[in-house]
Amino acid sequence: MSCSSSDLAPLLGSSANASAAADYICNQFTDAGYAIDTTYLLFSAYLVFSMQLGFAMLCAGSVRAKNTMNIMLTNVLDAAAGGLFYYLFGFAFAFGAPSNGFIGKHFFGLKEVPEPNFDYSNFLYQWAFAIAAAGITSGSIAERTQFVAYLIYSSFLTGFVYPVVSHWFWSGDGWAAAARNPGESLLFKSGVIDFAGSGVVHLVGGIAGLWGALIEGPRIGRFDHGGRSVALRGHSATLVVLGTFLLWFGWYGFNPGSFNVISKTYGPSGSIHGQWSAVGRTAVTTTLAGCTAALTTLFGKRLQTGHWNVADVCNGLLGGFAAITAGCSVVDPWAAIICGFVSAWVLIGLNKLAAALKFDDPLEAAQLHGGCGAWGIIFTALFARERYVNEVYPGRAGRPYGLFMGGGGRLLAAHIVQILVIVGWVSATMGPLFYALHKFGLLRISGEDEMAGMDLTRHGGFAYVYHDDDSITQNGSPGGGGGFMLKSSVVRVEPRTTPAAATNQEQTV
Amino acid sequence: MSCSSSDLAPLLGSSANASAAADYICNQFTDAGYAIDTTYLLFSAYLVFSMQLGFAMLCAGSVRAKNTMNIMLTNVLDAAAGGLFYYLFGFAFAFGAPSNGFIGKHFFGLKEVPEPNFDYSNFLYQWAFAIAAAGITSGSIAERTQFVAYLIYSSFLTGFVYPVVSHWFWSGDGWAAAARNPGESLLFKSGVIDFAGSGVVHLVGGIAGLWGALIEGPRIGRFDHGGRSVALRGHSATLVVLGTFLLWFGWYGFNPGSFNVISKTYGPSGSIHGQWSAVGRTAVTTTLAGCTAALTTLFGKRLQTGHWNVADVCNGLLGGFAAITAGCSVVDPWAAIICGFVSAWVLIGLNKLAAALKFDDPLEAAQLHGGCGAWGIIFTALFARERYVNEVYPGRAGRPYGLFMGGGGRLLAAHIVQILVIVGWVSATMGPLFYALHKFGLLRISGEDEMAGMDLTRHGGFAYVYHDDDSITQNGSPGGGGGFMLKSSVVRVEPRTTPAAATNQEQTV
Amino acid sequence: MSCSSSDLAPLLGSSANASAAADYICNQFTDAGYAIDTTYLLFSAYLVFSMQLGFAMLCAGSVRAKNTMNIMLTNVLDAAAGGLFYYLFGFAFAFGAPSNGFIGKHFFGLKEVPEPNFDYSNFLYQWAFAIAAAGITSGSIAERTQFVAYLIYSSFLTGFVYPVVSHWFWSGDGWAAAARNPGESLLFKSGVIDFAGSGVVHLVGGIAGLWGALIEGPRIGRFDHGGRSVALRGHSATLVVLGTFLLWFGWYGFNPGSFNVISKTYGPSGSIHGQWSAVGRTAVTTTLAGCTAALTTLFGKRLQTGHWNVADVCNGLLGGFAAITAGCSVVDPWAAIICGFVSAWVLIGLNKLAAALKFDDPLEAAQLHGGCGAWGIIFTALFARERYVNEVYPGRAGRPYGLFMGGGGRLLAAHIVQILVIVGWVSATMGPLFYALHKFGLLRISGEDEMAGMDLTRHGGFAYVYHDDDSITQNGSPGGGGGFMLKSSVVRVEPRTTPAAATNQEQTV
Repeated sequence: MSCSSSDLAPLLGSSANASAAADYICNQFTDAGYAIDTTYLLFSAYLVFSMQLGFAMLCAGSVRAKNTMNIMLTNVLDAAAGGLFYYLFGFAFAFGAPSNGFIGKHFFGLKEVPEPNFDYSNFLYQWAFAIAAAGITSGSIAERTQFVAYLIYSSFLTGFVYPVVSHWFWSGDGWAAAARNPGESLLFKSGVIDFAGSGVVHLVGGIAGLWGALIEGPRIGRFDHGGRSVALRGHSATLVVLGTFLLWFGWYGFNPGSFNVISKTYGPSGSIHGQWSAVGRTAVTTTLAGCTAALTTLFGKRLQTGHWNVADVCNGLLGGFAAITAGCSVVDPWAAIICGFVSAWVLIGLNKLAAALKFDDPLEAAQLHGGCGAWGIIFTALFARERYVNEVYPGRAGRPYGLFMGGGGRLLAAHIVQILVIVGWVSATMGPLFYALHKFGLLRISGEDEMAGMDLTRHGGFAYVYHDDDSITQNGSPGGGGGFMLKSSVVRVEPRTTPAAATNQEQTV
Repeated sequence: MSCSSSDLAPLLGSSANASAAADYICNQFTDAGYAIDTTYLLFSAYLVFSMQLGFAMLCAGSVRAKNTMNIMLTNVLDAAAGGLFYYLFGFAFAFGAPSNGFIGKHFFGLKEVPEPNFDYSNFLYQWAFAIAAAGITSGSIAERTQFVAYLIYSSFLTGFVYPVVSHWFWSGDGWAAAARNPGESLLFKSGVIDFAGSGVVHLVGGIAGLWGALIEGPRIGRFDHGGRSVALRGHSATLVVLGTFLLWFGWYGFNPGSFNVISKTYGPSGSIHGQWSAVGRTAVTTTLAGCTAALTTLFGKRLQTGHWNVADVCNGLLGGFAAITAGCSVVDPWAAIICGFVSAWVLIGLNKLAAALKFDDPLEAAQLHGGCGAWGIIFTALFARERYVNEVYPGRAGRPYGLFMGGGGRLLAAHIVQILVIVGWVSATMGPLFYALHKFGLLRISGEDEMAGMDLTRHGGFAYVYHDDDSITQNGSPGGGGGFMLKSSVVRVEPRTTPAAATNQEQTV
Repeated sequence: MSCSSSDLAPLLGSSANASAAADYICNQFTDAGYAIDTTYLLFSAYLVFSMQLGFAMLCAGSVRAKNTMNIMLTNVLDAAAGGLFYYLFGFAFAFGAPSNGFIGKHFFGLKEVPEPNFDYSNFLYQWAFAIAAAGITSGSIAERTQFVAYLIYSSFLTGFVYPVVSHWFWSGDGWAAAARNPGESLLFKSGVIDFAGSGVVHLVGGIAGLWGALIEGPRIGRFDHGGRSVALRGHSATLVVLGTFLLWFGWYGFNPGSFNVISKTYGPSGSIHGQWSAVGRTAVTTTLAGCTAALTTLFGKRLQTGHWNVADVCNGLLGGFAAITAGCSVVDPWAAIICGFVSAWVLIGLNKLAAALKFDDPLEAAQLHGGCGAWGIIFTALFARERYVNEVYPGRAGRPYGLFMGGGGRLLAAHIVQILVIVGWVSATMGPLFYALHKFGLLRISGEDEMAGMDLTRHGGFAYVYHDDDSITQNGSPGGGGGFMLKSSVVRVEPRTTPAAATNQEQTV
């Protein structure tokens, strides 16, 4: 709210009471603003949290049935371990203020919170972001990683690597933040406009996943003896679509929610032009980028493969979202369409490259979040519009904006620096961590366990039990009388009795 | 907000400053109103969007496993293609103002947005509605429609047919709108009260589906050689329930959200009677109509079939929601119970009629959205309460309301006109489109493809892969050692080795 | 909002107009408060409603495939029947005011609503709570209860037993309410602080489930001939995780939403300290308790069983939420971690006890909601912080708070009374109901039906149909040409042809 007691008081008269009256009225508006903005931020946080469910379902559907419980457990634990670590120190590293440009040093265990700039709702919102980064990485190393390795890297990423990056670009103290505190100089007089985290979240998660997947190597059978790529299809397209739609739903908390407050005026009070309108525009650009990327992928892949592939469309859609995340608040809707269109081809290209290089990422997470995230950072530096940049990042007259919009190259320079430092920082921290785990034999499961599946070997059984033992009667016939349409079973005919049939059976499975 | 500078200024004194003070204060309230209302509308839009996920899951669960990816892909593309087309021209046709009564002609590509009546959040909300209409139709033509036909009709419906209808009934310029611009005459001095779209969304989607399903004809095997109806059960009741609950969840954005703003007073300021209360009442009427319809269906179908059927209950519930959607804001909770009760029988009756006429709609979408939607339009004309009608559609003293509430027959006349023009318009546009696709051989897939399933023939494989090839060792025994409880496979014993057993096996499947 | 005309008027001058101006301005703030708070409460209600979907998925995944439709139908009907009964009299029993301390007696059929303290949004929010209680109980008696018994107990619980309990602790008239109307004496000068219902919802649902499960006895096969516990695993871990995450998502409506209003100041206007901040803190304590409980369960069960079990982690997480629900608004984040840690061990211990006593609760609902709920009540009495208690329950100077925080034992005494009266009341009402149903043969299904599964015997078939009859051609070979990877079938080889193979097959299923 923009109510200013010093503006209002003279209008109410010249007595001491006029000043008190103005204070009284403006304080009421302050309260209303807190109530509105907290409502807005908390429900946005809940939406971002629902993305964790989306990740869980997307990951589950994208892996083979035998590793379903494993990947879902990692998603649950991202959120749970992330909650504790982000409470204990992650939030402090990221936003603890005042601090230096590299890392925060207050708010450990939420001490000193609430204060005017940081309320509990801010913590919750940022926690939901932190666990999203860890969730991205889990996709890259799915189906072959030891559970303990997972716990270690996830805690390290959520508690330290990611918070430091978010401090650089999002904290008022951060050395590269576009919204750096007044008086502090901006990187290239611009700072980095990574509004909701194409770099801070998606590139970080993607590069972490890249190193994990590189060091582990591909899953058994992912490339055949001739080196050809063999698709190891996920076990449920339904879960992939469910997860994708949930991520879409949650992205409306991720991108528009990154304004944190909605009750802020732009310019004169009482007009339609305020942050509420920018919030809506951000939801629209997000939508259009994803939609365009999905359609582009649909037709692009149709030309390549000859069929209409729903999983590819889902990944294309998510790539469009990852790309628009940096610039969603400062570009026009028509630019978002360009963003999504290019994003689809970035993902298609990187997937081809990955196959050529025998890089195996079961969720395409490194390509999608890393590649499309990086494209989004560049895109923002090209298409950010002057008026929007000055509204969303106010108080710095003449700041640079998108190169193609006439805003010069300084924003682009800052954004190239962002990509470089993120790739460098994540490589320098997560790379050695994964390598050390690898050297100590803690990273990858044994080949035998990989063949059998982790659910059986580590998690107590399979995720699905469609048959019911207790309905089999003693003489081997079903007790339910013909109602076994849903029974899933493998028939393991003993070789000694009917070897030929057994062989035939397995071959035709 | 109702803050009026001209009301407040005299109370603050007679100086020029008093007027400025009043302006200052009232402008603050305007800002607060924008912030609150945008928060309200955007989160409502997100809920409506989540209905697309609900549709996807409901449709997936209601079709056979072999067509799961096909139907889900259409649901994803409804949203994606709908996003682009509604941005380019759909929103302009629907709400572009000023315009004539038939079609809008501004706001193409969101040009001229934002303006005081139309912000980005309005676009997002209306887009979520547009894709819901297309989603309804997809259910009617499931399991037998070519994918290209789907892309064509979906774009045409979302981009043109639906926007025109929404212009007629919801735009201030619309010839039949109950909230028509001041000074314009109302249809039968009443206009149509289709608050959230029993007609505009559900009847439109249902009639489009009716024509599609009629022209395509029933699925192979849906009626046997003797003409008897054979249920082709959906493959997952779990997905049906998941989708139904998500639709229920989303309907709270659909119906209460259709107020667009929540911070509006009814009568004197400072009382409980405002739009916030009407919003809550709308959520309650919506809930009660659905609940009653579900219970009525439960017992009604129990009497007919002898068992308690969860899929029927889900459809009954959704029928109740489709019916209450028109009148949800202008009827009392007790009336909503009547609405839901009748709605259940409408659906049961139309399903019997459909079976008798050999009409095959895999989702019952034409019966449910078309039939219950039409009933909801009539219901509103009978039970709309005077006070509520004047609060929700203010500024027209003495306007008609529900026939059974003493409000005369003019509202009913307008609503009968609504049903007729929607049925006529959708038939005149979608009917020829489906027929032309049919004539050009673009509508229905081949019988062979239909038997095999579209996932295999068009979408690259099946939706589910519960078995894992790589865990089968060379000698035909499982590599995982007994862990194959989840393996789903058909055993295809070659006839040449054990013909008798093979036959037995297939027969007992 | 705290705008007070009598405070503001003197500041605006001494004329009659000053008073009118103050009224005018403060009434605007009242309107804004209604709009904000209704937005907050309605969206919280929608989140709580989404828990019903969470329950449905959690329950479905936790039972065997053959009872999936049965349990999901009960979850749908909890919401539907609950809607009608809570509208007709449940809400009246709970919150009808003015009334006595035992039961409410106004608002039947929402008569006299809206009024300043009870708007439609309050009804919707409380309805969503009522159906949650019934949902808890459904888990305890899953897989063996007649459908009619379910309809009877669910209606009785939602319409009477639960509303009475909520009246005692949450209504301004309730004899044990911490927020009892001014002038009425508090229980032990304290009243019960059960903010969001560890007792009112979870303990009620858990104790009801306890009696149901006790009277029905364990499922067939749950304990073997030697009395050892045999896990009857649920059929889908994916649904368990989906349901758990949805419940987590919905809990943000359940706990922070229980403030009902967010636009309330604590102390002087214009500062960060208001209900908005307490709302955020409540979301944080909720999160941390669940996270800690999940991690504790992970490692605790790992030590016991040797594997990492996702279903156990999910239950541990939910137990942490059930425990923090009572005190979420009045404890510090660090205390929430203690709450979650102990909660995990409570659940582990009670599950061991249940196995030892041959008590079979398929969802562990009695242990989880009853046991952890009771622990949460005690926890609140130990750790409630003075400042928070006085902010959330204002107007009673010197009221007691947590024993370990220096607040004396009176709150603990009140909370012990709460546990006793809830256990007593629910036992005295639900116990005889279940017993009567048992005596009249209406409670448990036959052993034969239990073996066959309820979906087949009562609900018209199985929940899943992964195979498609119409794609089998006459000669017994698949019509789709090798596309049967998803076909789930049992091969029932006739004993007369190959008896040995048949026996082998069934044994290895």
